[in-house]
Amino acid sequence: MNPTAIEFYYDPVSPYTYLASTQIKALAARAGAEIVWKPMLLGKVFEAAGNRMPAAVPAKGRYLFQDIKLWARHYGVPLTMPTVFPANSLIAQRVACALSAAQLPDFACAMMKAYWAEGLDISQPEVVVAVANSLGLDGAALLAAAQAPEAKDKLRALTDEAVSRGVFGAPTFFVGTQMFWGNDRLPLIEDYLAGKLAT
Amino acid sequence: MNPTAIEFYYDPVSPYTYLASTQIKALAARAGAEIVWKPMLLGKVFEAAGNRMPAAVPAKGRYLFQDIKLWARHYGVPLTMPTVFPANSLIAQRVACALSAAQLPDFACAMMKAYWAEGLDISQPEVVVAVANSLGLDGAALLAAAQAPEAKDKLRALTDEAVSRGVFGAPTFFVGTQMFWGNDRLPLIEDYLAGKLAT
Repeated sequence: MNPTAIEFYYDPVSPYTYLASTQIKALAARAGAEIVWKPMLLGKVFEAAGNRMPAAVPAKGRYLFQDIKLWARHYGVPLTMPTVFPANSLIAQRVACALSAAQLPDFACAMMKAYWAEGLDISQPEVVVAVANSLGLDGAALLAAAQAPEAKDKLRALTDEAVSRGVFGAPTFFVGTQMFWGNDRLPLIEDYLAGKLAT
Repeated sequence: MNPTAIEFYYDPVSPYTYLASTQIKALAARAGAEIVWKPMLLGKVFEAAGNRMPAAVPAKGRYLFQDIKLWARHYGVPLTMPTVFPANSLIAQRVACALSAAQLPDFACAMMKAYWAEGLDISQPEVVVAVANSLGLDGAALLAAAQAPEAKDKLRALTDEAVSRGVFGAPTFFVGTQMFWGNDRLPLIEDYLAGKLAT
């Protein structure tokens, strides 16, 4: 029997997605669920949904940077302000789409860590290659594969899929048809998986 | 010695503020903190901060109504979709500004319960009067007091104060100068009060 799936639409540019990525594996393990990582382009999702990045509201942007620091301390995980924000995650996400399902989870987490724990500019191909290499993957070959139509089409399709399912921000999770938006919804996902939120 | 204060900027029109109001008293009791209730007009805050209500993004609006139901089940509290949304909370908030500090907490909670647990149209003066009467207050006298310049000025001043402190949504809490936005930040507030989020 397949375990319950938690579909995780992610973009490493999002700090709350990084924060959630530090917690979701333990949550899934506790619940006996598996995580299905789904790369998407958050900028395209914002555009399609008529949404905008939080920092578009100046007071919200100022709060966000305090808030993510508090969450990082709450979780006990590292957090560094990236040198470039928001970084263009197009190459990172196309590489993600060139990976196998077995390779994707570690790469996704490593890209978010590179950006939000190490402050690296993940828009740069050499940074993406170095992250892939650090995982024992062939970064140069993946960078080439990321330029092939298959990877480009897959990223476009996943982004469209997210929008068509009602995604308007990141991180977004699905358990079956139930959507959960935000790092701060992890306790709800855990309750939901345990059957505690049934009507 | 005064206990630590949790300042709570609230507007009963906000579902997440209702949800937070069902939990904040127990949280404050556990932390040995006191709650300072601060009525504000969320619509004015949105306007001043360049923010907009969540439902302005259609996909976010659809998610919101699912999400608040999940939170209500998570907390085990009642939730009903109001007949009128968003309701104009001007009268309710002016009455709140005509109350003593001792009367305010119960009235604030009762207004949120009337709107989000009973679905009443709290924009109507007779609803506000009935809620006040149900608490043993003189609803008719309070409705008159709410039209006096003192109540109007106080509500305007509290809303301006919120904006000047960086508030852009509801619920918003302050512990000293540290701001917390959202029902979903209650676990952070509890950690913060326990000294667990210090740098």
